[in-house]
Amino acid sequence: MAIDKSDQSVLTLDAIRAAHARIRDKIHRTPLLSSATLNEMTGKRLLFKCENLQKVGAFKARGATNAVFLLSDQEAARGVVTHSSGNHAAALARAAKLRGIPAYIVMPRNAPAAKQAAVRRYGGEVVLCEPTLASREATAREMLEKTGAAFIHPYDDLRVMAGQGTSALEMLEDAPELEAILCPVGGGGHLGGVAVAAKSLKPGIKVFGAEPAGADDAARSFRAREIQPLGEPRTVADGLRTSLGSKPFAEIMRYVDGIVVANDELILRATRMLWEILKLVVEPSGSLGLACLLDGAIPAREILPERIGIILTGGNLDLDRVPWQSQS
Amino acid sequence: MAIDKSDQSVLTLDAIRAAHARIRDKIHRTPLLSSATLNEMTGKRLLFKCENLQKVGAFKARGATNAVFLLSDQEAARGVVTHSSGNHAAALARAAKLRGIPAYIVMPRNAPAAKQAAVRRYGGEVVLCEPTLASREATAREMLEKTGAAFIHPYDDLRVMAGQGTSALEMLEDAPELEAILCPVGGGGHLGGVAVAAKSLKPGIKVFGAEPAGADDAARSFRAREIQPLGEPRTVADGLRTSLGSKPFAEIMRYVDGIVVANDELILRATRMLWEILKLVVEPSGSLGLACLLDGAIPAREILPERIGIILTGGNLDLDRVPWQSQS
Repeated sequence: MAIDKSDQSVLTLDAIRAAHARIRDKIHRTPLLSSATLNEMTGKRLLFKCENLQKVGAFKARGATNAVFLLSDQEAARGVVTHSSGNHAAALARAAKLRGIPAYIVMPRNAPAAKQAAVRRYGGEVVLCEPTLASREATAREMLEKTGAAFIHPYDDLRVMAGQGTSALEMLEDAPELEAILCPVGGGGHLGGVAVAAKSLKPGIKVFGAEPAGADDAARSFRAREIQPLGEPRTVADGLRTSLGSKPFAEIMRYVDGIVVANDELILRATRMLWEILKLVVEPSGSLGLACLLDGAIPAREILPERIGIILTGGNLDLDRVPWQSQS
Repeated sequence: MAIDKSDQSVLTLDAIRAAHARIRDKIHRTPLLSSATLNEMTGKRLLFKCENLQKVGAFKARGATNAVFLLSDQEAARGVVTHSSGNHAAALARAAKLRGIPAYIVMPRNAPAAKQAAVRRYGGEVVLCEPTLASREATAREMLEKTGAAFIHPYDDLRVMAGQGTSALEMLEDAPELEAILCPVGGGGHLGGVAVAAKSLKPGIKVFGAEPAGADDAARSFRAREIQPLGEPRTVADGLRTSLGSKPFAEIMRYVDGIVVANDELILRATRMLWEILKLVVEPSGSLGLACLLDGAIPAREILPERIGIILTGGNLDLDRVPWQSQS
């Protein structure tokens, strides 16, 4: 169903640089923050890339914007389609609105009302389907046939990956001294883009994925050197309950140094520390990088060098309560 | 009891500039963030100065650091004393630690354990007293006599006010186009410093204080042109349950254009919006500027020009639950 409109078969630094030039005036340049307390607790020198402060509250704004603005006028006129109930949905709706074209977002009927509302607030059209993969794909195909729109996959798409990789460009521009980058991994689009950008700019840098123990298909796939099934994910990090994509996996195998994991207790502990100490609202999925550096998450602390860039990928969650409350 | 060691009788831009040169490598340069959603909701163009991301989680780091580093070596050697159960306590302990001198922090016996722990974490000595003004002042006087330390008042002190005013210097450096600044007011040290800095740099700018309706002594004092008693404060904004100081009041009368107020419902609504939309953990006391711009908070929206700098003053609060939870 997904037709990749880019000519490339692999992701390149040039494509990521071009993406940055294309989207930089349409997204936030997010800050890199530090904390003496967190440095002391982890024994590292950490710089946090605040993609929770990004447009739509997540790095997904980068990839969706790049994909939408790469379309020719003729392609764009018919709009874009995706299936997503998460941050990519809102990001694609916003990017389409910026370009003045329609966005059709296929979401399961049981998707939270708040997520549907976010898409509509950005002018996207929510197309409901049954909460099964078959219905989701059939509904998306139907929309594609009906509208002639372009399909923009949330992560298995080089245009999207090029956009996501711009976060690493900014990190190395602002902090060229970084020796490692830790990036959460779900579908792998962000980690793949970050790895290409970082290793191309600074071959000696280490790039690690950070993944929930309860959805560790990327860690298993990395070890097996081929994509392993996700199985039934069980983790509080709802944004990372996603199967690794094949295009991201190819870049991950080429450039990533390893995938480290943390369990839900560590993820929630890290989330709370980010709120309490950094004063940032980060969703559990966005806290994986710090979670993997806490006591109990081995062996990331021993593997990793001193100066680490940690990407806080998003800050969208239900704020009726704090995420660690239901666990206590 | 407080002996002001500065020679000035009024606060000057020069003193604030000197403070900035003195403290700038000891504090964070906090970012100015914007949100298209909040602009749309308020009909203004807002820039948020993120002092919740400041060292110790509040602007108080500025004033305390300036006061501590203004002491002569001889004065400093005997340490510093204050009475505070809030952000000034941690800020003074941290500043003293940076200078390598003792800090004695008088706190009521019933001060939250977390606040006492914060002071100790920064190396401060907590001196407990009874939870009355008389005991607090007697205990502080006792410590001064015993140690010969310098007393650093949380706000009624020109050295502290000069430090707090540096937040406005940074705002106008980063966004010279600002037409107004909204700053929460409790004791008035921050608002006084901000007003002197902003009006001296840009005489046409408007400076407003933002105060809880349930602790509106600054608004009443401003109207009466003399300090009015606080009475019994009733507000969720615990950091602003403080009587206006006389030194801040003098600068406020000289430079401030008005004091606007918001009730607790608006304060909690604004707090939640800052968490949900800006992804920032801001304490209710830090949300006053936005609270005063929401529907129902009149007449701030009509008085104020379009481009407004809003100071988010702090982000320290108990995160066992969200602050609006107990209200629902």
